[in-house]
Amino acid sequence: MRNICVCQEFLTGDHKAQIRETAEPLGFAPWFFTPEQFGEAKACLQDCEVLYAHDPELLRAAPASLKWYCCAYAGVDPYCQEPSLFANPGCLLTNSNCYGVTIAEHVVMVLLMLLRRMPEYGEVVRNREWVNQLPIRSIRGGGFTILGTGDIGVNVAERLRGMGAARITGLSRSGRERAGFDEVLPISRLDEVLPRARNLIMALPGTAETRHILNRERIALLPRGAYVVNVGRGSAIEQEPLAEALNAGRLGGAALDVMEPEPLPEGHPLWTARNIILTPHVSGNMTLGYTCDRNVELFCEDLRNYAAGRPLKGLVDRSLGY
Amino acid sequence: MRNICVCQEFLTGDHKAQIRETAEPLGFAPWFFTPEQFGEAKACLQDCEVLYAHDPELLRAAPASLKWYCCAYAGVDPYCQEPSLFANPGCLLTNSNCYGVTIAEHVVMVLLMLLRRMPEYGEVVRNREWVNQLPIRSIRGGGFTILGTGDIGVNVAERLRGMGAARITGLSRSGRERAGFDEVLPISRLDEVLPRARNLIMALPGTAETRHILNRERIALLPRGAYVVNVGRGSAIEQEPLAEALNAGRLGGAALDVMEPEPLPEGHPLWTARNIILTPHVSGNMTLGYTCDRNVELFCEDLRNYAAGRPLKGLVDRSLGY
Repeated sequence: MRNICVCQEFLTGDHKAQIRETAEPLGFAPWFFTPEQFGEAKACLQDCEVLYAHDPELLRAAPASLKWYCCAYAGVDPYCQEPSLFANPGCLLTNSNCYGVTIAEHVVMVLLMLLRRMPEYGEVVRNREWVNQLPIRSIRGGGFTILGTGDIGVNVAERLRGMGAARITGLSRSGRERAGFDEVLPISRLDEVLPRARNLIMALPGTAETRHILNRERIALLPRGAYVVNVGRGSAIEQEPLAEALNAGRLGGAALDVMEPEPLPEGHPLWTARNIILTPHVSGNMTLGYTCDRNVELFCEDLRNYAAGRPLKGLVDRSLGY
Repeated sequence: MRNICVCQEFLTGDHKAQIRETAEPLGFAPWFFTPEQFGEAKACLQDCEVLYAHDPELLRAAPASLKWYCCAYAGVDPYCQEPSLFANPGCLLTNSNCYGVTIAEHVVMVLLMLLRRMPEYGEVVRNREWVNQLPIRSIRGGGFTILGTGDIGVNVAERLRGMGAARITGLSRSGRERAGFDEVLPISRLDEVLPRARNLIMALPGTAETRHILNRERIALLPRGAYVVNVGRGSAIEQEPLAEALNAGRLGGAALDVMEPEPLPEGHPLWTARNIILTPHVSGNMTLGYTCDRNVELFCEDLRNYAAGRPLKGLVDRSLGY
């Protein structure tokens, strides 16, 4: 039998049975650990061909005989930025596209919270006041700009469409058409799109190209009153000018589930910026049954591909970073 | 020309032109006032056959010759509970079903906020803490129970369906089937439904029958951890036992856009109940362009019906209260 080291905190008995039932007929034996059992996992890993986990330090402990690292997360920036984590430079790296549903629900929630002025109404209620005529906006009939047309962007677009959005523009590296978008443009045309992006949703991987892609100059290109949502990587936004634009009332609000660094240091201007909704990197957390089920399903699917020598569905192009 | 008194605060120039262009060819002259011009509106009203407004006191000032009162709001409880407001007992009463979209967006927002633990995460962030593993739930695959299958209920069901809800149960007086619902049951079967209503959405008119429909006994029937959303009338919920069930952790949370009375008095237990999202009756406010456009459209449509002697689309059955 060829060995698989599985180190996850979220697996139920059913998930383990599912992995076993997929692996064994293919000649693989899975060994299960939780992140707390780092030492045991590391020892086992020395004889493993596959690692299914989400911990760079565990990967660093893997031998050169490791052939496939299946990362349970969607964001693999730590692995792409530090190739020395892989003792075997030819080791395959996959990520998990199981987060689209939960992150899209988060995006719909915070978008509605911004459009419907919840940061301000929250304050009204905390002060025991009764104000109810702040002008709101709607998803129905609205225009939305989504940076990133991967699993997350597509799931967001689908939901906005279902709620009557009038125009959904996507931006991606390739500019390749995707279902659910009215248009997808190459990200090289970002500066042209920003002046009409009243609702900007960022779902980009963390790469050298996306670092500070929304910088001071581009924040200034956004229309007055625009809303910014970020569920990709904190590094995509230059944070100080964002806080300034919020506090000056130039932007209508922002919802950040990702920041740089996480958590933000004490006294960071984003903590107290005007009309900001901060969440502690929760949009894709692993507490939702559906997300976990899908994570295991995608691993099993790629294990079948791996065993058969077929291309892996979740394969990451490490030169691109996603 | 037959006269129409229009007393609204939200009309744009385009709206007034639209009303004029509908009315004049039918032999009607509209006269426009804002609620601040109460005296002028009242004087004009003495020669009017139609009143398009949302103020019980203005209606009380109308003569017996008033034949149709088009209320711009959806909830007409004040008019049904106090027949003496009408000098002409045969005066037609219509309400406006223009709020479904905006209230449904509010419901999706607060439902997601409850399912995704935003009251708690809000507290985490206010305390500058970093906790991100609170178990969340999803609209996708979830079951939803909607009391009230009118314009609001239907719009909520549509959006939950679009986001992958697994089962949507409606309850209405008649139990008549409605598009978008997996089943609609008569409200007489409420006690049977509540024990599996993990997500209860209330969008009921304020009538004698709906008063305290969610009383102490029925709150106790809800499953542990259930969420309650109310966008109908505050009177539908017995508020003290709701606060107790929230504080005891029996219910997972509640989002109330309507309360009794509004605003809540100082020291009321709902202000500080656990995991509560209070909003000051904003879900259907008249600041959203779409809502206002639709309100005017529906009035114009019924004006054409009225002029032609056809039944009015928004006609209220005053004995039912909606």
